[in-house]
Amino acid sequence: MSQRRERRRRGKRGRREQERDVAITKMTQPLNTLPVYDLLNDEALELIHEKSIQILSEIGIAFYDDESQSILKEHGAEVDDEGVARFEPGLVEAYLEKAPGQFTQLARNPDNNIVFGGKYMCFSPVYGPPYVVDREQGRREATLADFQNFVSLAYMSPYIHHSGGTIVEPTDQPVETRHLDMIFSHIKYSDKAFMGSVISAENAADSVAMAELLFGADEIRVNPALISLINISSPRRLDDRMLGAIKVYARARQALIITPFVLSGAMAPVSIAGTVAQVNAEVLAGIIFAQMCQAGTPVIYGSFQTTIDLQSGAPVFGAPESQLSLYVNAQMARRYGLPFRSGGMFSSSKIADSQAGYESVMSMLPAILARVNLVLHAAGWLENGLAAGYEKFVLDTELLGMYHKYLQGVDLSEDGFAMESIQNVEPGGHHLGTDHTMRHFRTAFYRAELFDYNSAEQWAIDGSLDANERANIRFKQLLKSYEMPLLDPAKEEALLEYIAKRKQEIRPGADAGLPMG
Amino acid sequence: MSQRRERRRRGKRGRREQERDVAITKMTQPLNTLPVYDLLNDEALELIHEKSIQILSEIGIAFYDDESQSILKEHGAEVDDEGVARFEPGLVEAYLEKAPGQFTQLARNPDNNIVFGGKYMCFSPVYGPPYVVDREQGRREATLADFQNFVSLAYMSPYIHHSGGTIVEPTDQPVETRHLDMIFSHIKYSDKAFMGSVISAENAADSVAMAELLFGADEIRVNPALISLINISSPRRLDDRMLGAIKVYARARQALIITPFVLSGAMAPVSIAGTVAQVNAEVLAGIIFAQMCQAGTPVIYGSFQTTIDLQSGAPVFGAPESQLSLYVNAQMARRYGLPFRSGGMFSSSKIADSQAGYESVMSMLPAILARVNLVLHAAGWLENGLAAGYEKFVLDTELLGMYHKYLQGVDLSEDGFAMESIQNVEPGGHHLGTDHTMRHFRTAFYRAELFDYNSAEQWAIDGSLDANERANIRFKQLLKSYEMPLLDPAKEEALLEYIAKRKQEIRPGADAGLPMG
Repeated sequence: MSQRRERRRRGKRGRREQERDVAITKMTQPLNTLPVYDLLNDEALELIHEKSIQILSEIGIAFYDDESQSILKEHGAEVDDEGVARFEPGLVEAYLEKAPGQFTQLARNPDNNIVFGGKYMCFSPVYGPPYVVDREQGRREATLADFQNFVSLAYMSPYIHHSGGTIVEPTDQPVETRHLDMIFSHIKYSDKAFMGSVISAENAADSVAMAELLFGADEIRVNPALISLINISSPRRLDDRMLGAIKVYARARQALIITPFVLSGAMAPVSIAGTVAQVNAEVLAGIIFAQMCQAGTPVIYGSFQTTIDLQSGAPVFGAPESQLSLYVNAQMARRYGLPFRSGGMFSSSKIADSQAGYESVMSMLPAILARVNLVLHAAGWLENGLAAGYEKFVLDTELLGMYHKYLQGVDLSEDGFAMESIQNVEPGGHHLGTDHTMRHFRTAFYRAELFDYNSAEQWAIDGSLDANERANIRFKQLLKSYEMPLLDPAKEEALLEYIAKRKQEIRPGADAGLPMG
Repeated sequence: MSQRRERRRRGKRGRREQERDVAITKMTQPLNTLPVYDLLNDEALELIHEKSIQILSEIGIAFYDDESQSILKEHGAEVDDEGVARFEPGLVEAYLEKAPGQFTQLARNPDNNIVFGGKYMCFSPVYGPPYVVDREQGRREATLADFQNFVSLAYMSPYIHHSGGTIVEPTDQPVETRHLDMIFSHIKYSDKAFMGSVISAENAADSVAMAELLFGADEIRVNPALISLINISSPRRLDDRMLGAIKVYARARQALIITPFVLSGAMAPVSIAGTVAQVNAEVLAGIIFAQMCQAGTPVIYGSFQTTIDLQSGAPVFGAPESQLSLYVNAQMARRYGLPFRSGGMFSSSKIADSQAGYESVMSMLPAILARVNLVLHAAGWLENGLAAGYEKFVLDTELLGMYHKYLQGVDLSEDGFAMESIQNVEPGGHHLGTDHTMRHFRTAFYRAELFDYNSAEQWAIDGSLDANERANIRFKQLLKSYEMPLLDPAKEEALLEYIAKRKQEIRPGADAGLPMG
């Protein structure tokens, strides 16, 4: 579908999209033109909206930062002595209107620019794990080399559209400067779009500076070059570090994903309705604040919600309750005309076993049906997000390939019905050699290369390898065949200079080291 | 929801349901009151209907059995010299009208009676594998002992509502008489509803005779005690064995599932639309024929469709194309007001590894969203249906439990919103001890006992078992703790006498052997 038709279809948000939707060529990113799965009716959505407005206007959201409180007050929010802000319904409406309904993020390779919003989907890798795991070396602390490996794997997959952010925590690098190494690694090892650092205002400023060196300071004010993940500390709280990052990014016109981190039963009620109402209020508070910092800041409505095991207190992924919440949150985002983000191939399993497979699709398929715009954690997630799995990553990408096929829907043309073949093949005959089959067999079905479709006998001859063992072979082959995309040497030089300077400022006298690991 | 409300809601089919819907107490069977996922609009469904009518009226369906051809002619179908029947649109309409929209199947324990149709869902075990597999003994030919084990496991699961049919092929029993052993095993080892044999008219007659001994000849004419799986030999063909079974069951007022067995690219075109149009025509032909044999025969519209690997010719399960077909077939069944059947926890994997997990949910979750009435192969399926996996069976049932929770939907009551808790928990606080949490924590979240939610450290201390290893322990525990449901000794005696007599008739002089294996 053309962007033009897409725009027309979305009706009430057309104007805003038009403003931001600077046409840029791209497209491995799929359009989800399938019907969306709406779990609740409009009346129920209105009820959730009302409850959220009650939370925003009566109960309030805490902003723990003086400057942020001033910004809120200046723009009409009421802030009490404890830093709790309350928003009148009219204020909520007015500032939500300022957020664009769709926007484009720049990638180093313009073919990899990403559209967020409308029917566009974007699959992005796992974010945040301090550990990595593979079946030979087991579980261990992630290093910068691991980071670069996962960036490389994401770069090589046609089904992953974004390079992600903290794809793993490079724990072998000093915590104060590792954001520089991460951003440089995204730039160097991939040409896909990437995410900024959100640990603090300073890290955000470094991210912006590096994006300016790569894309140009003016260019990134037209279309953002960074998108950054702001977690709200639920319940009802934004801390000073996250607020600092919001301010820096909004003022630099960079994009934000506002996502409450919620385990129902801990950071929110055990009920789905209560969780969704709270999450909605928290997201809206974050988005309104970003618009107060800079009207027109591109934002994504995010949800990261699951349940806890009420026996052990541990998070539980792939659970039915979080699927239901996801559908509803996606509907709320659509109600406000905002792009929506969720996970992902979530699992509580420690390894890429059947539990991981079951749980991952339980989480991921609803993201497809709910037409999520940005699927974070679309590959590699294990152990409640504490570990990135090498095997898991390449297995997940097989599923992402399936979803690309799935999103193509049903061809209802005359050719799609193949009536001539149906007529010509005798009762009990077969369609293997028909003209129709010969014309289509190369593209008719998606084939997961890593899944085994052989007979049991052939599978035994091949060594009776389970999917985890095959994935181990696969990811090593991929890393071996990896070829780095070309990077303009002048830009690389400028980035390395910036990094060296900043490392010296942040940790004077320490070995600056090149970020190449 | 009461059956009465259910009936009112279904509108145009109300009358037919009312006729058959003899109220019988039951209910672990869940109601799927979630919105159904409709992939296509009414216009597209009409197009598929028209193409199917074209197949039925112009291209035709072959019926390879003289008596069947006579029945078809008597009732107004045109049959040519090659046994190909053609059905005018008006004839199709008239005979479809005779099929009930909903019916109840009797179980030995009336609490386990099953309603097929409307919003009722029924999960039934894998059907047909000649092999079994577990991680200790590997893959081997299935025996009657395996059959009885799986019947026992299905009996013990609260999330499996039906005992199924040929849950595995008991290859250690003579092929001519093993249907007697299978039906007796269902009756003896479970008190859930079960399926009849469809290998031939004779086997069908034995199934009916045994059902009469168990339930009474009059009783099973009011509500069927057998439901039997008729596979259409696609493309466009019903063979004499299947036709024989249809005739016996329809005349005995027993229920039928009419299911074309289709691998797109082999038995149907490589395209989704062509496959769906053909499948729809074939199902309608089978249903019409059953109504011609006996008006009012309870039937289920079945689809068993997947793709082939066009490189090797092997079937592929868990593929995106078959999901799309499933949604459309379910919509077609609803269009005709008929109960619908699909799979299932399908997988091409040989063992319960991550491939099996991914593929199973890829197939199964759409069955939930499409509101399938009978999900056959809901547990245990491996290796394209050639093997029943012990570990896979108990792993699949964990997912079935999740779906039961999922089907409860979202509680939008005031209590569901928990606004008091949201107000009382401080920003950054937690909901672990609130009144609301304490009231609900026991039932708030479904907990998959077999999935590991512990920390990686605890998981390592527990032996680093993968899901397959834990499932191995679980199924053995279950079989050890199995307790046989009581069976009326007089009925058991009558059944054993019947079996002994029939074995003597079928294989004179052979060791009759008790079916206890």
